[in-house]
Amino acid sequence: MSKVIATYLVYDQKKNLAKKAESIALGLTVGSWTDLPAIDQQQLRLYKGEVVSIEELPIDQQADTYFDRELIKGLIKIAYPTRNFSADLPAILTTVFGKLSLDGEVKLIDLDFPVELAKQFPGPKLGVNGVRERLQVFDRPLLMSIFKSIIGRDLVFFETQLRAQALGGVDLVKDDEILFDNTLTPFEERIRVARAVLNETEQQTGERTLYAVNLTGHTFELLDKAKKAVELGADALLFNVFTYGLDVLQALSEDPEINIPILAHPAFGGAVTSSTFYGVSHSLWFGRFLRAVGADLVLFPSPYGSVALAKEAALGIAKELTQDSASWKTAFPVPSAGIHPALVPQLLADFQLDSVINAGGGIHGHEQGAAAGGRAFRQAITAAQANIPLSQAAKEHPELATALRQWGGQK
Amino acid sequence: MSKVIATYLVYDQKKNLAKKAESIALGLTVGSWTDLPAIDQQQLRLYKGEVVSIEELPIDQQADTYFDRELIKGLIKIAYPTRNFSADLPAILTTVFGKLSLDGEVKLIDLDFPVELAKQFPGPKLGVNGVRERLQVFDRPLLMSIFKSIIGRDLVFFETQLRAQALGGVDLVKDDEILFDNTLTPFEERIRVARAVLNETEQQTGERTLYAVNLTGHTFELLDKAKKAVELGADALLFNVFTYGLDVLQALSEDPEINIPILAHPAFGGAVTSSTFYGVSHSLWFGRFLRAVGADLVLFPSPYGSVALAKEAALGIAKELTQDSASWKTAFPVPSAGIHPALVPQLLADFQLDSVINAGGGIHGHEQGAAAGGRAFRQAITAAQANIPLSQAAKEHPELATALRQWGGQK
Ligand SMILES: [Mg+2]
Ligand SMILES: [Mg+2]
Repeated sequence: MSKVIATYLVYDQKKNLAKKAESIALGLTVGSWTDLPAIDQQQLRLYKGEVVSIEELPIDQQADTYFDRELIKGLIKIAYPTRNFSADLPAILTTVFGKLSLDGEVKLIDLDFPVELAKQFPGPKLGVNGVRERLQVFDRPLLMSIFKSIIGRDLVFFETQLRAQALGGVDLVKDDEILFDNTLTPFEERIRVARAVLNETEQQTGERTLYAVNLTGHTFELLDKAKKAVELGADALLFNVFTYGLDVLQALSEDPEINIPILAHPAFGGAVTSSTFYGVSHSLWFGRFLRAVGADLVLFPSPYGSVALAKEAALGIAKELTQDSASWKTAFPVPSAGIHPALVPQLLADFQLDSVINAGGGIHGHEQGAAAGGRAFRQAITAAQANIPLSQAAKEHPELATALRQWGGQK
Repeated sequence: MSKVIATYLVYDQKKNLAKKAESIALGLTVGSWTDLPAIDQQQLRLYKGEVVSIEELPIDQQADTYFDRELIKGLIKIAYPTRNFSADLPAILTTVFGKLSLDGEVKLIDLDFPVELAKQFPGPKLGVNGVRERLQVFDRPLLMSIFKSIIGRDLVFFETQLRAQALGGVDLVKDDEILFDNTLTPFEERIRVARAVLNETEQQTGERTLYAVNLTGHTFELLDKAKKAVELGADALLFNVFTYGLDVLQALSEDPEINIPILAHPAFGGAVTSSTFYGVSHSLWFGRFLRAVGADLVLFPSPYGSVALAKEAALGIAKELTQDSASWKTAFPVPSAGIHPALVPQLLADFQLDSVINAGGGIHGHEQGAAAGGRAFRQAITAAQANIPLSQAAKEHPELATALRQWGGQK
């Protein structure tokens, strides 16, 4: 019998983890058990949730103080028969963390996908290799940047910024996630202008740059809009998946006509992941789930910015996106915020070759402009991969030298 | 210029609320301001976010202890020009709480909808009056119940439970939210069986009972599936909105062919609302947003169960659903969990006439069965509305007497 196993971090005020676990396992499946007639138990056996394990953790004094009561902290694993739900995330989330999300201090830490279930989710359509193919870049981390202060600006501003970034050697330029369809830079016009600009810059540099247009609007317009984007020559889609729903991203990913990479943006995701006591773990929410439904690249807060994700959490997301899977291609981790060239060796050490270095201010803030900002990053990447200290590489690369002066030396 | 005003509860470790507020107002709109040339300021003025107010709150010793640092606690109000986003919740949430949801201890407490924006959201299609019309019940709270332990059971079991509940005088019977499309009780079969049973019981009792079928499956199948449900005679839809997306519910609500009430279930919603420090307030998430996108009835944890919502939070949701609005019909609050007949006077006092009394165990657990369980509730409602103590009413109503004995007397 196929089952999914959910792992919960629980703070139990009744201090009886075994009882809590049993009540979850029954409450979210067949409802009751011991009081059932044998004939009913026979029928319901295949549907019954099972407690897999209960692990009591050391007392969390900080939590006890905060809640002003003594709590037992523990990890509980429950197995749910996959026959209880349809193979879609709305059904799975409702089962394993629907009512339970409202039931006191419980956080969903992990959820395995047995192979038979995993195969019913698409995973990335292009994945790391597919995106690398589009760019013809196989031997280094990718470089991404974003439009800066684009709200209220027109297509000339858009075009100028895009060109500078592309000329600086940026592999992917993404829309700002807060840029929606608007009269100054309409969706279709952005795609048309970007197509023209990036065809030109490719002639100049010999390198492709992909523009990720923000796919926005009402849910049931998105498939048509994405197909229109592809038709107009869009390179990639940016998608604020958590303000729509994981299953909406899956539909985009599963559509064969939408054959361009999808960048999942973490906007609103922190509402679900930030608490120690509630919601869903970073690695599951930004990692496994987004990979399952087909994100090719996943943005998440870097562990280096001023308000940053804990390093363990950021690495946990990256691991979920890149580890071997029998069912799904790998996706690119894109740790974002606070990234400047001096951090490149650290980024490479932490997130490895198959990752994306994503900068905003670290490119646009370069004293010689965004193109120079891009070049400084590319110089840093080349040096870091050759194990050459950035300070040494900077002697031959003025853009990198400026960046190191502006943002500080190698960390 | 039309603006939405977002209210945030902030715990600021840099202890500079004014700076924090300004960085939110600019960071989520035009990016920067004071360093811009006058001509740019002229162009961007219409797009710039504005700090409306900053209110420092008393020091929260509990929070400081928990985070092990001194934090300034405060309420910040920011106004965002509506021209910055399209009139859909994914765009609005991305703007006002996209990146910000990942930016430290910030909770979205409130978000107003100016009338011009509110008019672009449907609100409930039927609302309180429309649902009452369908039931021809105008002068009392409605009574709702749920199937018990339905997972792994067949259509005979389903039919038997439904009949008992309808004969007991229940107005609405909803599917269990964890019942998905399955071979034992397929979606269309449940609707067909329910239609037949409820036509029969209406003949017997003279009262209509509405069956709310759980609308499940992949997002882009839902509109067709809902229309099919209507065609087959479904009375109402149950929808796990938070595992799909608020905008998906809006699409269901806006479709003129789906002319039956929609019950929004709070499953997974606790992942967003439970924390004091992160996510979205209960009143906004379960209240204003669900009403805006068109829920006719909204289930949320009652303030009476063992693990319950704080009373203030539950009443806050109900207020959002029922208060006057120039743009939207009112929706029914459905406080759920831990409800038994003795609580009816309290429910009526707290949630008023236009609410739904929703019981699971409090109906099915009645010693004389679910029909008697339903009757006990109806007897309690009649008594409570006439200001007759339940203990006195119980003298003439054996079902109520049994219920009071089982679950305790009037609270
Ligand atoms: Mg941004
Ligand atoms: Mg249930």
